[in-house]
Amino acid sequence: MDLSDSISLINDRIRGLTQYHLEPEPSATIKLNQNESPFDWPREVKEEVADFCKMRPWNLYPNFIPDELKKKLSAYAGVEPDGIIVGNGSNEMLLVLMLSLASRERDVLLCQPTFTVYRLLAAGVGATERIVYLDKSLGFDVDAICDAARRYNGSVLVLCTPNNPTGSFLSENDLKRILGVHTGFCICDQAYVEFGGYSAVPLLKSNPNLIITRTFSKAFAGAGLRLGYMLGAPEIIGQINKIKLPYNVNFFSEHVGGVLLSQTGTVRERIDFIVRERDALYNELAALPFDAVYKSAANFMMVRSKKKNELFSHLKNSGILVRDVSSYPMCENCLRVNVGTSAENKAFTDAVRQFFNPLQK
Amino acid sequence: MDLSDSISLINDRIRGLTQYHLEPEPSATIKLNQNESPFDWPREVKEEVADFCKMRPWNLYPNFIPDELKKKLSAYAGVEPDGIIVGNGSNEMLLVLMLSLASRERDVLLCQPTFTVYRLLAAGVGATERIVYLDKSLGFDVDAICDAARRYNGSVLVLCTPNNPTGSFLSENDLKRILGVHTGFCICDQAYVEFGGYSAVPLLKSNPNLIITRTFSKAFAGAGLRLGYMLGAPEIIGQINKIKLPYNVNFFSEHVGGVLLSQTGTVRERIDFIVRERDALYNELAALPFDAVYKSAANFMMVRSKKKNELFSHLKNSGILVRDVSSYPMCENCLRVNVGTSAENKAFTDAVRQFFNPLQK
Repeated sequence: MDLSDSISLINDRIRGLTQYHLEPEPSATIKLNQNESPFDWPREVKEEVADFCKMRPWNLYPNFIPDELKKKLSAYAGVEPDGIIVGNGSNEMLLVLMLSLASRERDVLLCQPTFTVYRLLAAGVGATERIVYLDKSLGFDVDAICDAARRYNGSVLVLCTPNNPTGSFLSENDLKRILGVHTGFCICDQAYVEFGGYSAVPLLKSNPNLIITRTFSKAFAGAGLRLGYMLGAPEIIGQINKIKLPYNVNFFSEHVGGVLLSQTGTVRERIDFIVRERDALYNELAALPFDAVYKSAANFMMVRSKKKNELFSHLKNSGILVRDVSSYPMCENCLRVNVGTSAENKAFTDAVRQFFNPLQK
Repeated sequence: MDLSDSISLINDRIRGLTQYHLEPEPSATIKLNQNESPFDWPREVKEEVADFCKMRPWNLYPNFIPDELKKKLSAYAGVEPDGIIVGNGSNEMLLVLMLSLASRERDVLLCQPTFTVYRLLAAGVGATERIVYLDKSLGFDVDAICDAARRYNGSVLVLCTPNNPTGSFLSENDLKRILGVHTGFCICDQAYVEFGGYSAVPLLKSNPNLIITRTFSKAFAGAGLRLGYMLGAPEIIGQINKIKLPYNVNFFSEHVGGVLLSQTGTVRERIDFIVRERDALYNELAALPFDAVYKSAANFMMVRSKKKNELFSHLKNSGILVRDVSSYPMCENCLRVNVGTSAENKAFTDAVRQFFNPLQK
């Protein structure tokens, strides 16, 4: 069989995709483009894990079910172990959810602009993406979501709250209103919930159609681990678990996850720091001549400026990397910057101030 | 929404699945049930990796594309880097392939008995499983495969060679015959190819509809890492890559993969050892009153005995764990045992001999 025949056999829905893409990074010294935590883990924590790696046989499969980690997650998240699946990043959990819940007959309802992986996965399983746009100030339009939930009866509704890249979030009341009318599954991606917004965990008990995904990549400073999890009603989680691949989390990340969950004091301090810095950053940026600065409940913030390209280049030349999110719907001229260390945040605001007012030093 | 309404919204094809299941293991001292390598990595190798873990920031995402690892894999496998995708075990690669190539309209053609994950994934994407059975001696029935390939025009054909759990394999000529008539994609799962059988890599050049999956779990003694990869024509791999999740391999496994690929001398020695032990094991078992012992090109071997349950229990009581594969099609009364260390293999054959001839010591 020749190449063009072979290419034509690849599912249309895959061939039609644009690849999730990240520009190759310059050797930026200050990396504020991926919503990572600015803090690595202390030496003692890493040494404990390094010792474990030397001791643990590499030739043996991980545990079939990561019971210890699930027990610790249960204590942390307040959901019983049977209501938890652990995965290779929350991305894998979202894929498993799409495989279980979406289909060509079952639409996926997204609030755009939002995290790009949802539409990729919806396309991957052949589901049609239905869009509710955020409101003009890029907050959630709860009335519009409720209308769409009624219109796309039984659809899989994905709510990223706090939302990437806008930082907006849904309140308890918002979520209750939406769950009151929605007749399909509702996936709440709460990757950033430790930094603000409302945690939907208390709503799980009375809403078996609610699933929450969370991650170790943000507040737990573990983006390198690829470790995430989903929370839901045990009976639902038991069904969804059937399509999860066996041995999806390697022994390293499984172990580190448990270690990090024993460090909640450090995690809490760092969250408090990031939240303080974020709010200070907002005040600083809001005083500058941006077209808009968006208040955020997450560890990042979006700004809008007609001089976006020049600002991006100016920052890059100053050794600071932020994310150009201007190709997202409604995000023309927007950049996203995550909160860094004090020094990084100062370098960033200094560079931005210098950009808008080059004569001042 | 109540629980039963929610359950009814889970895709039928998922609800209908039986979960991939592994019995909780007793504290067996000799573990011959998962086709793992019996050899862990030497202290020096593990120490290098432990040092890397202490140095590498955990809070930062892995490389967007694992270029270094792909370069090393390219040198090892003889396929250009653009023809490689690295994944979280070959399982993830198989899932990505099913998402890209199979669908409700595109059947999946399997040679049963075989690895159970294929049918799980086929069901996950809503594809119909079509079955060609192995022949009576559990070898591949190439005529039947060719007939089925003609009948299920354009289907996704999955060939596990060497095959799990039987150890049978397809020769170069077999594969050429099959590829000569098959009009769809052909996925060759070659997780065990380092131990024997024919490596299909030379066929990639002239068959863009051929994709090979491989793993670090077996010959590379890295089952704990969850690291696998696929090989194919660069143009095809580029398309399939679109649906692969970003950051699917964590920094630990990415790094370890590179380290292990620098240890091919050790890997080669261990393969030679396992192949020698396997062939000796075959000769020993073939002399015992089994109903059948199946010659294998992999690091495991299947045996059949009407006393299967008693033998399994006897082994378990002797601290030896093997795999009961009797629920696989055509595998009634079968057990699968992988090659271990010399001492483990001796303990196993001693226990089997004692089972069949309890009066001898």
